[in-house]
Amino acid sequence: MKICVLGAAMTDFGENWKLGLREMAVAAILEAVAVSKLELEELDAIVVSNMSGSSLAGQDHLGSLIAAELGVNIPAFRIEGACASGSLAIHTAANMLLAGNYKNILVVGAEKMTDASADNVTKALSRAADEEWESFYGVTFPSLYAMIAREYMRSFKVKRSDLALVSVKNHSNAVLNPHAHFKKEITVADVLAAAMVADPLGLLDCSPITDGAAALILSSQQKGKAELVASSVATDTIALHDRKELTTLNAAVLAARKAYQQAGITVKQINIAEVHDCFSIAELIAYEDLGFAGKGKAAAMLKSGEFNRDGRLPVNTSGGLKACGHPVGATGIKQAAEIYWQLCGRAGKRQLKSGLQYGLTHNVGGSGGTAVINIFKNV
Amino acid sequence: MKICVLGAAMTDFGENWKLGLREMAVAAILEAVAVSKLELEELDAIVVSNMSGSSLAGQDHLGSLIAAELGVNIPAFRIEGACASGSLAIHTAANMLLAGNYKNILVVGAEKMTDASADNVTKALSRAADEEWESFYGVTFPSLYAMIAREYMRSFKVKRSDLALVSVKNHSNAVLNPHAHFKKEITVADVLAAAMVADPLGLLDCSPITDGAAALILSSQQKGKAELVASSVATDTIALHDRKELTTLNAAVLAARKAYQQAGITVKQINIAEVHDCFSIAELIAYEDLGFAGKGKAAAMLKSGEFNRDGRLPVNTSGGLKACGHPVGATGIKQAAEIYWQLCGRAGKRQLKSGLQYGLTHNVGGSGGTAVINIFKNV
Repeated sequence: MKICVLGAAMTDFGENWKLGLREMAVAAILEAVAVSKLELEELDAIVVSNMSGSSLAGQDHLGSLIAAELGVNIPAFRIEGACASGSLAIHTAANMLLAGNYKNILVVGAEKMTDASADNVTKALSRAADEEWESFYGVTFPSLYAMIAREYMRSFKVKRSDLALVSVKNHSNAVLNPHAHFKKEITVADVLAAAMVADPLGLLDCSPITDGAAALILSSQQKGKAELVASSVATDTIALHDRKELTTLNAAVLAARKAYQQAGITVKQINIAEVHDCFSIAELIAYEDLGFAGKGKAAAMLKSGEFNRDGRLPVNTSGGLKACGHPVGATGIKQAAEIYWQLCGRAGKRQLKSGLQYGLTHNVGGSGGTAVINIFKNV
Repeated sequence: MKICVLGAAMTDFGENWKLGLREMAVAAILEAVAVSKLELEELDAIVVSNMSGSSLAGQDHLGSLIAAELGVNIPAFRIEGACASGSLAIHTAANMLLAGNYKNILVVGAEKMTDASADNVTKALSRAADEEWESFYGVTFPSLYAMIAREYMRSFKVKRSDLALVSVKNHSNAVLNPHAHFKKEITVADVLAAAMVADPLGLLDCSPITDGAAALILSSQQKGKAELVASSVATDTIALHDRKELTTLNAAVLAARKAYQQAGITVKQINIAEVHDCFSIAELIAYEDLGFAGKGKAAAMLKSGEFNRDGRLPVNTSGGLKACGHPVGATGIKQAAEIYWQLCGRAGKRQLKSGLQYGLTHNVGGSGGTAVINIFKNV
């Protein structure tokens, strides 16, 4: 059985002061349903992706909330795996479709983050780390990724200005995305001059706190212009200090290997990717974990233009987490939406040249405790 | 393809001062794996059920946490649908097995509730209601179910002493369950004399705040002594004030109808059930929603002894949420474990007579926004 994407939509990502979690989710859903040309009545389940609704919006039980808002009584529930929730929701929906009990599933991710104080958001996000052995002692996500960055820089003689190129590229891509949080070019000098968050990561090495929602309609019955040909998940120690190596995310390596196998392709056949650039260092490591670059070679390849819009393998044409924004629960679904739009020629001003066949999403939870790889194919 | 239960386990439910969320989950898992006679390496996914880990234990990302604790890198993620999370996790695991990508799945539910202040727990639980239209205005779950109880009592001329019989029965059952939170008989007079929580519901009409974990191993490959023959989910408005009727949970009616159909049986064939008695009134309504009793007849049937251990259809032999306890994320899985143990003759002192063929679990989220019915068959 094939799983097709029938439609996708996203709200603007940014500081959506006038919209709550519910309003954003519903806006993305109604647009995705409309473009998929399905009626609401044809949906037979809803999988919701969200991480911090409980702590930041005082709302759990989002399955029922969203079903009620749509006026349907179909199965609906929430999936959470920290920042990888969105891709996990797609993975779950795909399995439900393959099981044969469901035909058309709505996957929706939403996060409302800007109504809480920065302190509360940092605390809410730190719940993706090990509370008893990391967060309790004051560790935050910028500090975890800063340790990864330090070790990577030491091992492979990479400089802060190399990391900065990730943010520069992704900001440049976001200028073409009307839904992006930051539609603004930045330079390496800007990144280096920005306030330090957790040395060596400055403010412009970090993805922002963003509100937003994204929705995807998956179907085992109807034909669409893109198929989900692989969906694989792997986990690793939740605590960074339990890892054997800091310069690779083993969960991503395992999930990628399995995904290429499932899709029956090699990494060379991937034409476009959205990767989890929660911090600049994360995108460099993603290139290597996915097999896009050899170990320690990521920065050099990025510098060569390989991953630019006009390069061999454009990465994060949406602007990535860094510049499109990172409303946690929506991120994995926005990644899939971007790949879908690019594969079927609906990416507007940021549309790449035609002939794209395979697109990949790389979505990570915590400091690498969960990784999900989904691969889509143009059909 | 058949889905079999290979093993089940639960920790003691109660005030587990010496155990955290992680320790309880792992204890239940290791016992379930041992009784299933599988090796940890034979598991190929973990579905975690939890509602309030984020707010009460400061811990999200439980999939990775638990995989790490077991030393495995397999897919793992969390499912949440308020108090129905446990049965939703079973539903999801069943679909993953039917999809054919997984063979043996560990389902584990855990909740750590007694380390937080009562005020915090009440607030955390209220996140299962509609934050903007219910909880924000001070509504709590006892008050929501009190409104249901008032309307039910008015409609069907039922008294507080009729509701009390639910708690009396379930406490009596829990005396035989070594894992139960309250192994203590109570009388109708005790229930009526208890402190009022939300009129007409007193303290002994309400399920307690409980710590605990439960685990289940499901397989599409190996044979077990019980099969999952139906798993169905339905939703309804999250807000109670949006319902057409207060004396029935439409989500439960819809899910039950679908479940009987899936299993190819009628309600008369059910030999044992675990139902969601978060409040005494909820069990009476469950009898009617499931078709065990006609509309308005639940109290009379309960009084007749129909649902007692020695009745025609024993309900909540574990002690139910009321007396076995209600560690939210663990509840649906504990219900399934109890049915499994009863069906295959492993229920110890509380074992019913042999010849049980079908057992049902009824698990509700919020005030009825989600309902999940799972049916197991002795094989």
